[in-house]
Amino acid sequence: MDTWRTAIVDAGPTHIRVRGHDVLELMRQATFTDLIFLLHHDRLPSPAERRLMDAMLVGVADHGAGAPSCATARLAASGNRQSLSAAIAAGVLTIGDEHGGAGSGCMELIASGLDRARRDGLSFDAAAAQAVDEAKRTRTRLPGFGHRVHSTIDPRVDVLFTLGDGIRLARALEAAIRERLKPIPLNIDGALAAVLIDLGLPSMVGKLLFIVGRVAGLSAEVLEEYTREQPMRIKIPVKYDGVPPRQNGQ
Amino acid sequence: MDTWRTAIVDAGPTHIRVRGHDVLELMRQATFTDLIFLLHHDRLPSPAERRLMDAMLVGVADHGAGAPSCATARLAASGNRQSLSAAIAAGVLTIGDEHGGAGSGCMELIASGLDRARRDGLSFDAAAAQAVDEAKRTRTRLPGFGHRVHSTIDPRVDVLFTLGDGIRLARALEAAIRERLKPIPLNIDGALAAVLIDLGLPSMVGKLLFIVGRVAGLSAEVLEEYTREQPMRIKIPVKYDGVPPRQNGQ
Amino acid sequence: MDTWRTAIVDAGPTHIRVRGHDVLELMRQATFTDLIFLLHHDRLPSPAERRLMDAMLVGVADHGAGAPSCATARLAASGNRQSLSAAIAAGVLTIGDEHGGAGSGCMELIASGLDRARRDGLSFDAAAAQAVDEAKRTRTRLPGFGHRVHSTIDPRVDVLFTLGDGIRLARALEAAIRERLKPIPLNIDGALAAVLIDLGLPSMVGKLLFIVGRVAGLSAEVLEEYTREQPMRIKIPVKYDGVPPRQNGQ
Amino acid sequence: MDTWRTAIVDAGPTHIRVRGHDVLELMRQATFTDLIFLLHHDRLPSPAERRLMDAMLVGVADHGAGAPSCATARLAASGNRQSLSAAIAAGVLTIGDEHGGAGSGCMELIASGLDRARRDGLSFDAAAAQAVDEAKRTRTRLPGFGHRVHSTIDPRVDVLFTLGDGIRLARALEAAIRERLKPIPLNIDGALAAVLIDLGLPSMVGKLLFIVGRVAGLSAEVLEEYTREQPMRIKIPVKYDGVPPRQNGQ
Repeated sequence: MDTWRTAIVDAGPTHIRVRGHDVLELMRQATFTDLIFLLHHDRLPSPAERRLMDAMLVGVADHGAGAPSCATARLAASGNRQSLSAAIAAGVLTIGDEHGGAGSGCMELIASGLDRARRDGLSFDAAAAQAVDEAKRTRTRLPGFGHRVHSTIDPRVDVLFTLGDGIRLARALEAAIRERLKPIPLNIDGALAAVLIDLGLPSMVGKLLFIVGRVAGLSAEVLEEYTREQPMRIKIPVKYDGVPPRQNGQ
Repeated sequence: MDTWRTAIVDAGPTHIRVRGHDVLELMRQATFTDLIFLLHHDRLPSPAERRLMDAMLVGVADHGAGAPSCATARLAASGNRQSLSAAIAAGVLTIGDEHGGAGSGCMELIASGLDRARRDGLSFDAAAAQAVDEAKRTRTRLPGFGHRVHSTIDPRVDVLFTLGDGIRLARALEAAIRERLKPIPLNIDGALAAVLIDLGLPSMVGKLLFIVGRVAGLSAEVLEEYTREQPMRIKIPVKYDGVPPRQNGQ
Repeated sequence: MDTWRTAIVDAGPTHIRVRGHDVLELMRQATFTDLIFLLHHDRLPSPAERRLMDAMLVGVADHGAGAPSCATARLAASGNRQSLSAAIAAGVLTIGDEHGGAGSGCMELIASGLDRARRDGLSFDAAAAQAVDEAKRTRTRLPGFGHRVHSTIDPRVDVLFTLGDGIRLARALEAAIRERLKPIPLNIDGALAAVLIDLGLPSMVGKLLFIVGRVAGLSAEVLEEYTREQPMRIKIPVKYDGVPPRQNGQ
Repeated sequence: MDTWRTAIVDAGPTHIRVRGHDVLELMRQATFTDLIFLLHHDRLPSPAERRLMDAMLVGVADHGAGAPSCATARLAASGNRQSLSAAIAAGVLTIGDEHGGAGSGCMELIASGLDRARRDGLSFDAAAAQAVDEAKRTRTRLPGFGHRVHSTIDPRVDVLFTLGDGIRLARALEAAIRERLKPIPLNIDGALAAVLIDLGLPSMVGKLLFIVGRVAGLSAEVLEEYTREQPMRIKIPVKYDGVPPRQNGQ
């Protein structure tokens, strides 16, 4: 087989280096959050960047046992007690564009707004207004805005807000949506997207960071399911509304 | 359906609390590592405990693209470009007792050694010697010792070693193995196990912490596979050694 | 990398053979059930064996949207609409010893009963009585007996019963359990186990056959979730019963 | 929680019915392939339809241990021996648009060609020519054509070809591609797509049928990995080509 190539980790019998940094030195001095940044970037974060990364990872880690990813992990743990990794993986699989994954789409939305502003010499407000009008005309959903539980404002969003162009454009989008559509607050996925843009990370990280953070919560949920609950405890009530019983195989 | 109960997260329209701590306050002040500790424990860590947690999570996050979990995630990403979470989940599924999962078994080994020492008033060396003799007699593998790449010593182990009874017993086991079997160094899973015992965490966390840390690496590996490689690039060479072609359906 | 070896499929640019059978010939003449048997055995089934395999696969394919594996697949489909395979995989991950996986344990139970009868010249009834007494003494659960929904008898069990030593011993176990413990009927996992023993398949197939059959049901459940339901429709009710809100970060 | 609704299975303490058919009757008389059709359709198949379904499921079940889904399942089984379902799920997760999933896209391509022919009164050849010209102009890939191993023709395709409009249009597309682009044969995904259209199944079944069939192969691959190979046997060769070692944490 062809040898695989990678620019992330160089591991040999006497050394392990992550993007050139010796893992022993990292173990002594770096935080896990530093390492997450380093793995997805090409350098360690500054103190301000580390603070934002920590805030984001903490903010998405767990949203309650009933959140789809957490509930899925617990359902899997309820039927299969042989593999903690199976239950966590089942929870991860529930994460997609609809649940936790809006960050990537919102990063693309913000990035294209920033491009438009820079290319055409527009203010952020004007670029945001154009983007919202376009979404209105093409009836496209704006990823990163709105939340099924927090109908007014997600309390986690404000904490993330510091100064950066990504965040300024996200706020401009929020204002343009309020004026041109109706008040739909930026949600946690959208706030993450804005911060990640300002940290210089690619748009796929919008989803990946949610997954990395959420796995910490899934791990705790699965541990609780194993230790507090009986196997097979979960029964979902179902109502059949299909074709009635058939006679004679018809 | 019955309402589910949980003691981890309390999430409502205007608040999210993790084990009683307001998530906004955590986002402002805690690190992701603090939160991981809190999710699996009942309190935040001390600075020394946080340092150990960071060292462990950093130590297990990525061991190169060829490690089974990383290779699996990349193989999945190679065939399925529709879902980052699918590729990461595939990587997680590769983690078991054989790969990254020895920590749980080693935690049970150390915990039973500590119990024995306390109950029977033995020194750690004597308790360790008994455990090794028992494993020798019953031909049981001692989880947490030995590594396929690092045949002498895993460079990550020493960094984790501070003072605690779990670690003292792990070192006593290592000495007893050297004397009574042959030199088999404590590996990273075993070092984690010893530290986790000293942090007061249950034995399942031996596996869970590896998963939580490794997901950060899987995320970076999948990002690299998506951005640097073509879909379906991976071809595994296979040799068929089964029954020869059959004639006439025999 | 070392070349992998396999005795299952020989695939080249101009041929694909499964255990020596040309796949084109199989596509023309064999059923999917024949192929499933061939993949796990070393030959095609007889007509009677094919009938039993079909009955088993049909019997386990779907037990309603509320069964843990089906519910998990639908929960995953509810959050992640980018990957049908992610939703099906989440459902598969819920299958373990507790859900659908009792077959493997029951196959080992029956196989050891058959061994005991042959080795010690016992009747099946005597061998079964010994096995039940042993389980009673060691307080071990007997896998393959009892069901949470069908408290008296699972209607699917009788259909599988034809003549074979595995089935005779399973019936002897059922009788011994009724006499020595209390009436606990053989369940569908146990009936499968008995039939699979008679078909000469290894005990791991007890779980694998359940997975292969159930994936057909998971596929239909996921298709229905995608086509009839909105994303994120599922909300699990949760009650928090952990520590109360903390003041000042205590 | 709201009760879930379903039109697939009605399961109660004394009955299980699949789309109105009693499962006991199905276990006695139907094949697994009949049930797969029934689960995704609203009726049992005719003998000719059953034959096509069997041919398709047999055709996709296994393409060798080195196929991405099979290799992934074996890698997962190599690291995690606690859960057969984890290894199978990892294999399933590798299936996407690039691997096995082209069927859904090709079903949409054929269905839109059929619509165009019927709506505009075109011959199939004319409709196919328009579709190919369009793909050429927009530089879109035509799903269901071309294969990385079988550069000329996939030997499995011809077996599936009987008479139906879906198949006629697929052949017309193949001819139009040969004339207007270059010879790119219909592959197994495309052939499946054409047959599935003729069977009246929705386009998502293009992927689902591949998954259902392939799981039979994954099951056999995982069984072989568990029974013939040591845990952790697989080592992927990796070459690091990233930044060089850093000095002093720079």
